[in-house]
Amino acid sequence: MKKLKVGMIGGGFMAKAHSLAMTAAPMFFDDGIILEKYKIADVSMESAKAAARKLGFASYTDSWQEIIEDKEIDIVDIVTPNHLHEEMAIAAAEAGKHIICEKPLGRNSEETRRMLSAVEKAGVKHQVAFNYRKTPAVALAKKYIEDGEIGRILSFRGTYLQDWSANPDSPLSWRFQESSAGSGALGDIGTHVIDLAHYLVADIEQVMAMTKTWAKERPIQDVGADSLGNIKSDSCKKGPVDVDDQMITLLRFENGAIGNLEATRNAWGRHNYLTFEIHGEKGSLYFNYERRDELQVCFSEDPDDRRGYKTIYTGAAHPYGDGLWPIPGLGIGYSEVKMVEMHDFLHSLQQDTSCQPSFLEGHRISEVSDAILRSAANNQWETTKSLTMK
Amino acid sequence: MKKLKVGMIGGGFMAKAHSLAMTAAPMFFDDGIILEKYKIADVSMESAKAAARKLGFASYTDSWQEIIEDKEIDIVDIVTPNHLHEEMAIAAAEAGKHIICEKPLGRNSEETRRMLSAVEKAGVKHQVAFNYRKTPAVALAKKYIEDGEIGRILSFRGTYLQDWSANPDSPLSWRFQESSAGSGALGDIGTHVIDLAHYLVADIEQVMAMTKTWAKERPIQDVGADSLGNIKSDSCKKGPVDVDDQMITLLRFENGAIGNLEATRNAWGRHNYLTFEIHGEKGSLYFNYERRDELQVCFSEDPDDRRGYKTIYTGAAHPYGDGLWPIPGLGIGYSEVKMVEMHDFLHSLQQDTSCQPSFLEGHRISEVSDAILRSAANNQWETTKSLTMK
Amino acid sequence: MKKLKVGMIGGGFMAKAHSLAMTAAPMFFDDGIILEKYKIADVSMESAKAAARKLGFASYTDSWQEIIEDKEIDIVDIVTPNHLHEEMAIAAAEAGKHIICEKPLGRNSEETRRMLSAVEKAGVKHQVAFNYRKTPAVALAKKYIEDGEIGRILSFRGTYLQDWSANPDSPLSWRFQESSAGSGALGDIGTHVIDLAHYLVADIEQVMAMTKTWAKERPIQDVGADSLGNIKSDSCKKGPVDVDDQMITLLRFENGAIGNLEATRNAWGRHNYLTFEIHGEKGSLYFNYERRDELQVCFSEDPDDRRGYKTIYTGAAHPYGDGLWPIPGLGIGYSEVKMVEMHDFLHSLQQDTSCQPSFLEGHRISEVSDAILRSAANNQWETTKSLTMK
Amino acid sequence: MKKLKVGMIGGGFMAKAHSLAMTAAPMFFDDGIILEKYKIADVSMESAKAAARKLGFASYTDSWQEIIEDKEIDIVDIVTPNHLHEEMAIAAAEAGKHIICEKPLGRNSEETRRMLSAVEKAGVKHQVAFNYRKTPAVALAKKYIEDGEIGRILSFRGTYLQDWSANPDSPLSWRFQESSAGSGALGDIGTHVIDLAHYLVADIEQVMAMTKTWAKERPIQDVGADSLGNIKSDSCKKGPVDVDDQMITLLRFENGAIGNLEATRNAWGRHNYLTFEIHGEKGSLYFNYERRDELQVCFSEDPDDRRGYKTIYTGAAHPYGDGLWPIPGLGIGYSEVKMVEMHDFLHSLQQDTSCQPSFLEGHRISEVSDAILRSAANNQWETTKSLTMK
Repeated sequence: MKKLKVGMIGGGFMAKAHSLAMTAAPMFFDDGIILEKYKIADVSMESAKAAARKLGFASYTDSWQEIIEDKEIDIVDIVTPNHLHEEMAIAAAEAGKHIICEKPLGRNSEETRRMLSAVEKAGVKHQVAFNYRKTPAVALAKKYIEDGEIGRILSFRGTYLQDWSANPDSPLSWRFQESSAGSGALGDIGTHVIDLAHYLVADIEQVMAMTKTWAKERPIQDVGADSLGNIKSDSCKKGPVDVDDQMITLLRFENGAIGNLEATRNAWGRHNYLTFEIHGEKGSLYFNYERRDELQVCFSEDPDDRRGYKTIYTGAAHPYGDGLWPIPGLGIGYSEVKMVEMHDFLHSLQQDTSCQPSFLEGHRISEVSDAILRSAANNQWETTKSLTMK
Repeated sequence: MKKLKVGMIGGGFMAKAHSLAMTAAPMFFDDGIILEKYKIADVSMESAKAAARKLGFASYTDSWQEIIEDKEIDIVDIVTPNHLHEEMAIAAAEAGKHIICEKPLGRNSEETRRMLSAVEKAGVKHQVAFNYRKTPAVALAKKYIEDGEIGRILSFRGTYLQDWSANPDSPLSWRFQESSAGSGALGDIGTHVIDLAHYLVADIEQVMAMTKTWAKERPIQDVGADSLGNIKSDSCKKGPVDVDDQMITLLRFENGAIGNLEATRNAWGRHNYLTFEIHGEKGSLYFNYERRDELQVCFSEDPDDRRGYKTIYTGAAHPYGDGLWPIPGLGIGYSEVKMVEMHDFLHSLQQDTSCQPSFLEGHRISEVSDAILRSAANNQWETTKSLTMK
Repeated sequence: MKKLKVGMIGGGFMAKAHSLAMTAAPMFFDDGIILEKYKIADVSMESAKAAARKLGFASYTDSWQEIIEDKEIDIVDIVTPNHLHEEMAIAAAEAGKHIICEKPLGRNSEETRRMLSAVEKAGVKHQVAFNYRKTPAVALAKKYIEDGEIGRILSFRGTYLQDWSANPDSPLSWRFQESSAGSGALGDIGTHVIDLAHYLVADIEQVMAMTKTWAKERPIQDVGADSLGNIKSDSCKKGPVDVDDQMITLLRFENGAIGNLEATRNAWGRHNYLTFEIHGEKGSLYFNYERRDELQVCFSEDPDDRRGYKTIYTGAAHPYGDGLWPIPGLGIGYSEVKMVEMHDFLHSLQQDTSCQPSFLEGHRISEVSDAILRSAANNQWETTKSLTMK
Repeated sequence: MKKLKVGMIGGGFMAKAHSLAMTAAPMFFDDGIILEKYKIADVSMESAKAAARKLGFASYTDSWQEIIEDKEIDIVDIVTPNHLHEEMAIAAAEAGKHIICEKPLGRNSEETRRMLSAVEKAGVKHQVAFNYRKTPAVALAKKYIEDGEIGRILSFRGTYLQDWSANPDSPLSWRFQESSAGSGALGDIGTHVIDLAHYLVADIEQVMAMTKTWAKERPIQDVGADSLGNIKSDSCKKGPVDVDDQMITLLRFENGAIGNLEATRNAWGRHNYLTFEIHGEKGSLYFNYERRDELQVCFSEDPDDRRGYKTIYTGAAHPYGDGLWPIPGLGIGYSEVKMVEMHDFLHSLQQDTSCQPSFLEGHRISEVSDAILRSAANNQWETTKSLTMK
């Protein structure tokens, strides 16, 4: 059993999710690696100390560079706002550390291209946390597609709908500022759907998009507040929002399929409504993360009098079923999804294969995101790949 | 109680639906008008006779012109393939008859503009059968919107998914030919979603669309077959499909809302999956015609700990509740929807108000459809209204 | 095409439903019989006249005996409160008329035994309006069971939940009085579930039941009100309720299956929630009338990695699909269910076969109902059949 | 931060679930206690070693008595087959250790009465792992009820349906033998519903039940197999099943409510279908663990035109929301439910309050289970409490 030391940068809700996964994955899957929660960095000594205590890290610091410089650390896990990813990841790569980085990989594809170059040059393992493809039901969808069960894919329909910022008085966190987030609903949640589209269908070749900012300004958070969180502000001072609240785009895939994709944080009643429906020549697939134990599938080969969408609850007979709970419906939660993600990372380390999704996939998603923003600005179809890359 | 005589042109499944509604509406609603099923025309004397016998018409003919020329007839009901609508409707208008016309109103907006001119000039009542807005749950959505319950509308998401032609061996009926249908999934089912969007949100100002023809050819139906039906063919000869199987479009509404809309007949497992979701500043609405007794609504004003989508089963407390069944869930079927449509038509006749939707709405939908086809051909945003109309 | 004359007794909501079905069934199914709405009787000349006008009857009367005595009438359709069924049905039988009678057939099995004897003696056709088994999805369940698709049946779980009288201030209509209704939720709605259990599983042999009356008294309706309706009362005078608001029973079937069944009108949020779930050795079936276009079915023979409940939307490929709408999801409503019921009645007349369900089935249901009331009173298992009958 | 040492007895899937919860709970909730995974016992040194390695225990043994005797251990966690609970728990109590015991607490109420006496005498903390009441949506149901939101409770309808043993060739594990399990579906899953009924409604006073054993014999597992698991057997030798596969019971609650409850492992297509519906004078609640992020609630006070079941996704605004994921729909899985359970246990330790549910609740459930078995044997209503206890 190999033991590897982790340095985590960031101490918010994602730090909790990753820390849990590090501890839990070995209880569920046998990847031959145990992770040691070695050191955590946060914006202040106080918050770093609290995070270390809560999440079980042996030490803490308010300097993320200390994580990079610590020779003991094998893996750097970056769970900070988007604008910090590039500098941290490149530094970690240059220090020879394996990297897990929260999504989106960067604010734009210039950043992600540099990040990709750095990790490739350094020869370290790199994974970007588009975790939703790790849901067993999504992996089952992938399996059906690869096995040809729904035939050639014709179209894809994806949504990610939330309502946590539908109230225009929710505070102006870093997620509403281009300088820290890169984009709004697009980067925050839309990129998850892009990842699923790439994973399940094919690379997106062209996009035609619209974006909207519904709340042009929001209450400024107190300066003293933790910049990583979303603490409600009593302040009546407002600041401008310069990213999208909603994004819709048409899609052309490299394999000839078409589709559309939407992300919004202004959809009252939808919370984590990440859905896709895929129609193939021989069947259809539907998934809604809010009911993530289930994959819906329709096979055209069923007889006319008994064809219909079937609800599959994932369990022992499905992907990751060996490690997870023995009975379908015991429950796939965020914990289980994050465990599977960590398991895949550890498995890649152990087997010395490339992680999925890696910075390469993360970079491709950034290229699509950039094309979406260009398309929305220019009102025209945009190609996602630069000529030199393709 | 006024009695009006109806001449129906067409003898297929829609003739049945309209005939039922004519008989049933007065049992449910008190509009002061009784319709007499006076004469029906179909493509042959044999099929016309059979239709008359089955649907309860007193007489029949194989000449639609005979319907127009019969002075006894007050109302002409056109339930034929799309390419016949214009000539028939204009003739009926010029003969001073009120008109019900199946949807889409015509193959394109040139036809529908002429049809609109004719009925306006003639001063007759005119209704186009976009019946789905007549579903009580849709009318309830309209009421909530008009009452301001969900505030300013931000976005609209509409789909109409079917699978009856997903099998490429389903026959080449008139619905797959531009000359008879005008367009494919767009005209056949997409126009219903456009109607709902116009009804519930606002006029669509601009579109950006894609279309696809998945089955480029289909088996030719026997020449002897009834051209109105979809009789399965044993023939192995195939003919070209020159309309869209699938259409997706982005939407910009006149009131600033945005959205998207999709129609396909290649969605295995979806049958009559006409859905919309509308997000407003103060709430959301969701409807799926396959579960048409229900409207889902989320109000933002609900307290944080008890906010969520609520499932309303329409009944006596909701639109058309006075006439329909007394208890929610007894069941809204196609019969009930068509009855409501006929009731509204009779009510307009009795009150001398304009029908909803009329040829004006039908024409506007054709303009949007034309813009969608232009956009898909030109790969650019298109404005739906010609300058002179606006 | 044979023409038969109908005399209807009763002018409320059920009269509307039956009248519609009489007119509509021949448009959908070819049974070789046309029904003529000849005469209708109601409690007063005024209400009878109004019903005749609305529902399309040629004549009317305030004397139900006039219906019986009219030699022109072939079929008597009884849609009155329960306590009137026996006298009317026996008189109609003795007059040699075919009979459709609303459910429950009588207030108790003594009444229904006499009714059954009368129709058998008279040799007339007799049908009792347990209409929910006529839903295409229920007929599909029956077909699957008969074809052995779910194997030997192990258990049955049935509910009929409503909330129209959950408010204790809803008026004391005839449905809350033993003298007119026989029983409460049991007879009104529970008998529908008993019918489905008998139809789909086997005869119920033994029951063990509880009943509850939640609202012991309700506001008295104005004396002047139509006794057939449920007109809201302004009166503050209250009268006693002497029937059950809720009934739950365990079931033992003749074929060894077990189950339970529940009916209540005090289930806020449930409107016409008639459901069953049947587990067999080889599969399961689930149905909910509030989503009546759908049957859910799980086949154990499906492979482990793709087993689950499948949602079948009934259409052309399913029972009654030849006559009803051509595409699944166009919509099965109360109209369609009642049409199918009338079609089956006409088909039995034309083919000279016995109706399903007939007074025999209606009587068996009454025996079960009686046993349920006995069991609830005596707190013990009761056998449903008297020894002499079995 | 207090540190307590845990000794776990048992190494199967439940050991994993509990171990995860011990590690995870402090990351989510601040209870002032950290648990140290000190020692684990399993049936052999080999399996104990493997479990220790996988689950992170510092030491291991094949003697459960060693856990009891180890003075370092503060808490004993019992995750063994049912017939071992009594001896282990009493020994642990007498050794002064706090106890977590898997459910059902014992094979029958004689055992549980002795267990309850032992822990009460010893003055240790005791919790029984009826974990489903720890689901946030269930806790929300409890809160609504306590706040009077649905008024006086009229009725309860509970199910727990699974299909993992619907195949009669699934092996004869300890769960199918009275000597090791006490009862079948009743004890295994039915007791969870009893716990929810007691938690949400009131104590069950009387039951009237049926049980069935559908598969009278099952293939014997290899002797060498781990007795804790359900390893598939190749053996063609079969042994008798002497417990129930299915149980249905009527319920009378102490507060006057009525209801019914069912458990079966022969329900193809249902996996962990633990549901309840509760109807009150002012509203209704519905929960299905297979969609455990959601609570459905209907409030009668809503206006007539907007009353219906509302789907609440639990999140920050609901019970346990402070500790769990910040956005509804991120996902409640089995991990999260078990974490909440552990949090409540730690909280009770820290605050020195009694655990919920404790051995007292576990014993009460056993009394109800015993009454159910008596009732099924005797075909009569049975009172759940012995006179001396009440």
